Amino acid sequence: MRGAVYVNGRITPADQAVVPVYDHGFVYGEGVYEVLRTYNRVPFLYDRHMHRLRQSAGRLMLDVPFDDATLLKWIDETAAAAEDVREAYIRVMLTRGVGELNYDLGSTPTPTTVIIVKPFEPLPARVFDEGIRISLVDLLRNHPKSVNPLIKANNLLNNVLAMQAALRTGAEEALMCNYRGELTECSQSNFFLVRGGAALTPKSEAGILEGVTRAFIFELGRELGIGVREETLLPKDLETADEMFITSTTRELTPVVNVDGRPVGSGKPGPVTQRILARYQIRAQQLTESLIPDR
Amino acid sequence: MRGAVYVNGRITPADQAVVPVYDHGFVYGEGVYEVLRTYNRVPFLYDRHMHRLRQSAGRLMLDVPFDDATLLKWIDETAAAAEDVREAYIRVMLTRGVGELNYDLGSTPTPTTVIIVKPFEPLPARVFDEGIRISLVDLLRNHPKSVNPLIKANNLLNNVLAMQAALRTGAEEALMCNYRGELTECSQSNFFLVRGGAALTPKSEAGILEGVTRAFIFELGRELGIGVREETLLPKDLETADEMFITSTTRELTPVVNVDGRPVGSGKPGPVTQRILARYQIRAQQLTESLIPDR
Repeated sequence: MRGAVYVNGRITPADQAVVPVYDHGFVYGEGVYEVLRTYNRVPFLYDRHMHRLRQSAGRLMLDVPFDDATLLKWIDETAAAAEDVREAYIRVMLTRGVGELNYDLGSTPTPTTVIIVKPFEPLPARVFDEGIRISLVDLLRNHPKSVNPLIKANNLLNNVLAMQAALRTGAEEALMCNYRGELTECSQSNFFLVRGGAALTPKSEAGILEGVTRAFIFELGRELGIGVREETLLPKDLETADEMFITSTTRELTPVVNVDGRPVGSGKPGPVTQRILARYQIRAQQLTESLIPDR
Repeated sequence: MRGAVYVNGRITPADQAVVPVYDHGFVYGEGVYEVLRTYNRVPFLYDRHMHRLRQSAGRLMLDVPFDDATLLKWIDETAAAAEDVREAYIRVMLTRGVGELNYDLGSTPTPTTVIIVKPFEPLPARVFDEGIRISLVDLLRNHPKSVNPLIKANNLLNNVLAMQAALRTGAEEALMCNYRGELTECSQSNFFLVRGGAALTPKSEAGILEGVTRAFIFELGRELGIGVREETLLPKDLETADEMFITSTTRELTPVVNVDGRPVGSGKPGPVTQRILARYQIRAQQLTESLIPDR
C-alpha cells in the first residue's frame, strides 16, 4: 500500500491505517464515498464530487461532519504526509461510525471520516490508443428500490461480482442490465454508445449512478456540437453502435472497441469518442490550472 | 462495546479491535458472516452455520482459511478473553482481506477472519409474551441476480435501510417484497404466517436467505404434527393470516401481532406460534446439553 490515510483526524502511512471492527462501515458496509483525482495537483471537479457525497449521505440520513473547505484542508494534509504523491488518487469515505450491532440510527452518534490519498497511477497509453474490451454480464444492476445506484455507497458487492465475472472473460469492465433488461452502467463507470454521430447513454431512471464525468460529457458535447443525450438502451443496441466509451474519474473517457469478443464498429477508437476525449483532457488541464493555489 | 474480538489471530477487548482501512471488507463490504448464540455455553447448530458460511464464501469465490474445529477453538479463546460472557453472541466475519483498491481477486491473497464474542442479551420477556409489531416497507429485497440474498454478506445496506424505515413507523422489524411483489423475508429474520393451522413461509426462489432457524422450524413442525411449508405469499395474505412469526438465531421464534397498525388475528401470540416456540426452546436446551464439553 502506498500513500497516507486520514481517519477522524489521525493521519498515518497507508499500511498502518485502521478502523474499529465495530464501525458500521465494516460490519454492514454502511457508508458513502467519492473518488477524485488531481490534475495540476488540484482535485478535479471537487465541488461536484462534494455535492454528490452530500446527496448520497442524505439518502442514508447520514450527517456530513465537515464543510467542503475543511475537507479540502484535510485532503491537503493527508497528501503532504504521503510520499511520492504528485498527482493524486483521493478516496473520501464517510461511514455510519462505531456503535452497537443494530440498525438503529441512535446507536451510532458519530460518523467516521476516512481519506485515502495515494499516487495517481495513469492508465497505460494503450487503453486510450487502442481501447478496451468489455463484457455484458448476467448479473443485474441493483434495483433502485432495493439499494439505489444513485447512492455511491460502500456496499459494492454488486459491482465487485459484475467486475469479477468480466475479468474471467478477459474483459476490462463489466456492463450490466437492470431487472427490466435495459442497459444501465458498468461496474466502475458510466456507459455511452455512439450512433448516427450522437453519444447516447442510459437514462437516470434505468438505475445508475449519475457520474460526475458523465455529466461533464454532456457539457463537452455542447461545446463541440456533438449531440449527447439520455436514451433507453437495450442489449441489441450494442450490435449496431458505431462507437462506445465508458466514463469515470480515473478512466476519463475510455474507448470500448470490443464487447464479449465482437468488435465495435471498426474495432478501433472512433472519431466521436476521440474528439470528446481530447476536449476532456484539455478542459481538465484548464479548469485545474485556473485553481492552482500558491503553495 | 463489551466482549472481545479476534482479528487474524490477535484477540483484544472489543473497543480496541481494528481492521486495516485497505481491507476490502471495509472499502467494499466484500465479505460474509454468520451470527451464532450459545445455550449451555455451546454454540447452537454450529455445524449448520459453518456449512452456510462456506456456501456464502463459495458464492464469492472466497477461500475459508479454517476448518470448523479450528474456528471453534478460536471462538472459545475469544470468549475466554471476554469478561462477563456466560451465554454468548458470536459473529464470525470473513472478508476478502487487504489489497490494492480494485476488484481483481489477485489483489487480495489473504482473507481476514474476525470473531466478535460478547454477552448474549436476552430479548425482553414481552417480546415472546405479547409479540411485536412489524412494517411492510416500500424497499424491495435485493434481486437474486444482483446480490443474491442467499449470500449472507456484509453488504447489508438493503437490510439497514428497510429496518430504519420500519423503526420510523414504530415497528420492530421490516418485512420486504421482492421485485415481483411477493413477500420475501425481514431485515434480520425469516417470515412465517399461519393459516388453517399450517405455518407458511416464502419459497427460497422468492429471494431470501435460507435461515438456519427457518430450516429448524420445518423439523419442529414434523415433530409436532404441524404443517410447515413454503408458499408464494403476497401482501394480501397478510390480511387473512391467523398468526405470524419471525425466526432468527437471536430472536428464536418471535410472535408478530401487528402489521403497520393492523392486528394479526386476535392481536395476541397465537397457539400454533406458541407451540412451535415452546418446542424450539426445549430442543435448543436439549441439543446443546448433549454437547457440553468438559471445561
